[in-house]
Amino acid sequence: MPGRFITFEGGEGCGKSTQIERLANRLRAEGHTVHQTREPGGTRLGEAIRNLLQHDEAGHGMCPETELLLFTAARAQIVRELITPALERGEIVLCDRFADSTTVYQGVARSIDPIEVAAVNQFACGALMPDLTVLIDLDPEIGLQRARDNRGAPLDRMEQEALAFHQQVRRGYLELAQVDNERFTILDGTKEIEALEKEIWNAVEPKLS
Amino acid sequence: MPGRFITFEGGEGCGKSTQIERLANRLRAEGHTVHQTREPGGTRLGEAIRNLLQHDEAGHGMCPETELLLFTAARAQIVRELITPALERGEIVLCDRFADSTTVYQGVARSIDPIEVAAVNQFACGALMPDLTVLIDLDPEIGLQRARDNRGAPLDRMEQEALAFHQQVRRGYLELAQVDNERFTILDGTKEIEALEKEIWNAVEPKLS
Repeated sequence: MPGRFITFEGGEGCGKSTQIERLANRLRAEGHTVHQTREPGGTRLGEAIRNLLQHDEAGHGMCPETELLLFTAARAQIVRELITPALERGEIVLCDRFADSTTVYQGVARSIDPIEVAAVNQFACGALMPDLTVLIDLDPEIGLQRARDNRGAPLDRMEQEALAFHQQVRRGYLELAQVDNERFTILDGTKEIEALEKEIWNAVEPKLS
Repeated sequence: MPGRFITFEGGEGCGKSTQIERLANRLRAEGHTVHQTREPGGTRLGEAIRNLLQHDEAGHGMCPETELLLFTAARAQIVRELITPALERGEIVLCDRFADSTTVYQGVARSIDPIEVAAVNQFACGALMPDLTVLIDLDPEIGLQRARDNRGAPLDRMEQEALAFHQQVRRGYLELAQVDNERFTILDGTKEIEALEKEIWNAVEPKLS
């Protein structure tokens, strides 16, 4: 497809949304049509699913399998309603989390069989894969503290998980990025915002031509 | 597991809920502990998902893949939260729709690859299979008219599908029941309520010992 699909991954508080905002501004300044979106969510239905996953009281006692299927339901919708049509028009889509989040959060940290996770993920995404995935790596102790400091609202269901869960997420991301190192670029989330912005641009620019 | 899991399948308006009510009453009169439940739904989370699937405005434009993943998300939850624990305690669970609905509605009528439907369904259900499935077969023209007559509320998203869709559903059910004829019992939905009730009891009773 003529467009470019760039995803951002990493633990809570790693700085994804700040960097997506800066990258989107730079791409727009250079004349690109850019969609900034997030998972779960990004569509009306996806945002309703997000609410179930993160904030709704109905989510208490949710099984790992249910969680996986809800995340991938939101993904199936955004892929077909927003991302694929935009890429077909030659536009750029920046997405805060995508299929790798499920591989790591549900597969590694919730211990669902990785073959089953991959099968459900692939059913949801069809043939779509990101052209580039930016992983912002950060010690979860720092990231969770940032997440707490940055918001007035209480932490969501995933953020409330124990530190050991978030450490498994971090390890899962690093392993995934090392295996698929052509698609991933791994950045150090302790760096200054401007330094990260520059590194992200250096990874994105070669993908635009 | 010591309990019994009996599912009811069929098109809209075929009379499943009336028969479930009657069977539950008879089983209770004979001293069994009976759970009457439905899919999607049956748990707090499942009912929230049901609302998204059937009535919420966010459901307009829902892709077939998203629909399948939402149905199976509700299923994954009811299997682990309600059905399996009840069966382990030796109780009887009567469920209005289960995995066969997905095989037929999303697989046959929405034309999703049946191998993918089966894989997602199995992920949601784990090893759980019904001990008996009662299929109430009915011409969808009759069933949809009954559904319209029986309720004050407007038809839900699935009921609003064209007649051809519901005819595919009917054919899909009959084919499925013929292949898996040990688990299924096929009943003629044009019969009187009392006659159907008796036929259902004749199918259920041998499964109780």
